[in-house]
Amino acid sequence: MRGVVMHAPGDVRVEQRERPTVVEPTDAVIRVTAACVCGSDLWPYRGVEELAGPTPMGHEYVGVVEEIGADVRNVAVGDFVVGSFFASDDTCEICRAGYQSRCVHAVPMGSIGTQAEYARIPLADGTLVATPTAPTPEQVPHLLAASDVLGTGWFAAVAAEAGPGRTVAVVGDGAVGLLAVLAARRLGAERVIAMSRHADRQALARRFGATDVVTERGAEGVAAIKELTGGLGAHSVVEAVGTQESMMQAIRSTRPGGHVGYVGVTHDVSLDGMELFFSGVHLHGGPAPVRRFLPELVELILAGEIHPGDVFDLTLPLDDAAEAYRAMDERRATKVLLTP
Amino acid sequence: MRGVVMHAPGDVRVEQRERPTVVEPTDAVIRVTAACVCGSDLWPYRGVEELAGPTPMGHEYVGVVEEIGADVRNVAVGDFVVGSFFASDDTCEICRAGYQSRCVHAVPMGSIGTQAEYARIPLADGTLVATPTAPTPEQVPHLLAASDVLGTGWFAAVAAEAGPGRTVAVVGDGAVGLLAVLAARRLGAERVIAMSRHADRQALARRFGATDVVTERGAEGVAAIKELTGGLGAHSVVEAVGTQESMMQAIRSTRPGGHVGYVGVTHDVSLDGMELFFSGVHLHGGPAPVRRFLPELVELILAGEIHPGDVFDLTLPLDDAAEAYRAMDERRATKVLLTP
Repeated sequence: MRGVVMHAPGDVRVEQRERPTVVEPTDAVIRVTAACVCGSDLWPYRGVEELAGPTPMGHEYVGVVEEIGADVRNVAVGDFVVGSFFASDDTCEICRAGYQSRCVHAVPMGSIGTQAEYARIPLADGTLVATPTAPTPEQVPHLLAASDVLGTGWFAAVAAEAGPGRTVAVVGDGAVGLLAVLAARRLGAERVIAMSRHADRQALARRFGATDVVTERGAEGVAAIKELTGGLGAHSVVEAVGTQESMMQAIRSTRPGGHVGYVGVTHDVSLDGMELFFSGVHLHGGPAPVRRFLPELVELILAGEIHPGDVFDLTLPLDDAAEAYRAMDERRATKVLLTP
Repeated sequence: MRGVVMHAPGDVRVEQRERPTVVEPTDAVIRVTAACVCGSDLWPYRGVEELAGPTPMGHEYVGVVEEIGADVRNVAVGDFVVGSFFASDDTCEICRAGYQSRCVHAVPMGSIGTQAEYARIPLADGTLVATPTAPTPEQVPHLLAASDVLGTGWFAAVAAEAGPGRTVAVVGDGAVGLLAVLAARRLGAERVIAMSRHADRQALARRFGATDVVTERGAEGVAAIKELTGGLGAHSVVEAVGTQESMMQAIRSTRPGGHVGYVGVTHDVSLDGMELFFSGVHLHGGPAPVRRFLPELVELILAGEIHPGDVFDLTLPLDDAAEAYRAMDERRATKVLLTP
């Protein structure tokens, strides 16, 4: 089968890879209907994260079940399924507490590589959520978004305790930040402030429910949020970038006792204990337990209530994966969908 | 009046200070019945925090109202009152959210100095909680503990979401850590693990409700907590020291999705973003909003349900404040009560 392999920073190729089969009785193999490129795929692409040799890429996916292991009960051959970027058993104590991304048996899907024609899904019963019927082609991008960017934005909004009566600020206008705006609004937030300086992303943020846009960054961004919130700061702030500046912007934009939900992968970030102490904020984040939210998100999508797939602004055949990476790296695209 | 003044690290004196009077119409002046030395008073005593000249000391206090300003409604002359280490209006948006230590009009009581015969209490209506009747002499130390160490330990346990069905670990066996043990147990925690290597403090921790004691520190301490919790880590961990080692011990002892409540003042602590990200914990702490809990704590104390004053293992007259500081600095005492 064809699959994306990264050989070195900037060197993405589509190659023949071995077609996966069921290895464990809890596995399923799916034919990938759609996959995509993640902001986090750009870390090795840009050389920020090191590669240990040629690496299959991709951890977002929707598809059709082709084969199941002997112990799989919850999905059947022919089902259309959505999974997330960690395979999880969904039965251990950590999963039951809602942290499936830290399942005691978690398998990172990035180690498997879903930018491919087929993918093996470990722990299929715990990992996959089947749709009641096959989705329409229009629904596929929205379901694919649920696999990571929507689920991550949703988790960030939940971690930030977005809800009725609360003002939520979102630092970062990538796909995750934009979908955190959507999530915050769906969770009932009264006011959602998108922090963005790109007109097209501002427009999408407003479509997703942003009530305000702040274009300033850093200390000026913080001052703008304070000004919009009676000098106190937002109740809830989502951090969806992962740099020192964005993390401090998030913490400093939050009122004492407020909540920061952070999902940007925090490379080279260091938090000063004294500043954090006196900020008085709640801090929660990490790799999103997308599986916790998947059933609800799939339902909202199939009911046509949310359209998270609108973050895809470029669709390419799998064979053009190199161009997909380039477009995201050069910010010509927010999020690229790949069709195998 | 007599009051404690710190002139330099290690140099604590009892001197004549001007007797306070009502300055603002929202002030009260109290005759201090009992005050004490805080772990945080040792930071300048040890030269870790700098002094800007001779500084009146103390921020924990109980006493009797001597005089009130024209606008004071909630307390009357003659009332026995308990306050906390931040004066707060208890009416602003931050106070109403339960973060009185970050009240928009907050006044740190340390800037006033309650290790003295009298003290001016700003924002008396918001700050002070009066007991229904005068307490017995036996009740006074318990009420004094509510002023800071109990309130801080309680906040830490609440921030760590101690509660039914949860295993709580407490890093730090000073007065705050010991009272976090008491708080965790009162909040319904199933299992409370005190991390302590001092026999006397271990004994007090057990009296306060600890079910287990772990003597190891650092990586070995973390391993011991993991072993006691099926390899997962505790649901809730209280950090009550404020060093890099104790903070990392707390974070690493917490399971993914668990909660760290930190109240040790975090000098020279720096948190690595990547480790925090992948820990998946909730982190919350800072200067405890003791006022949030005071009414409930006063009630529990007067009902004889909790005995937090047992952390005082030395009582000295105010005039012996220098010895009080020495005893705490040299760890001959956990917590010293001063009687003006």
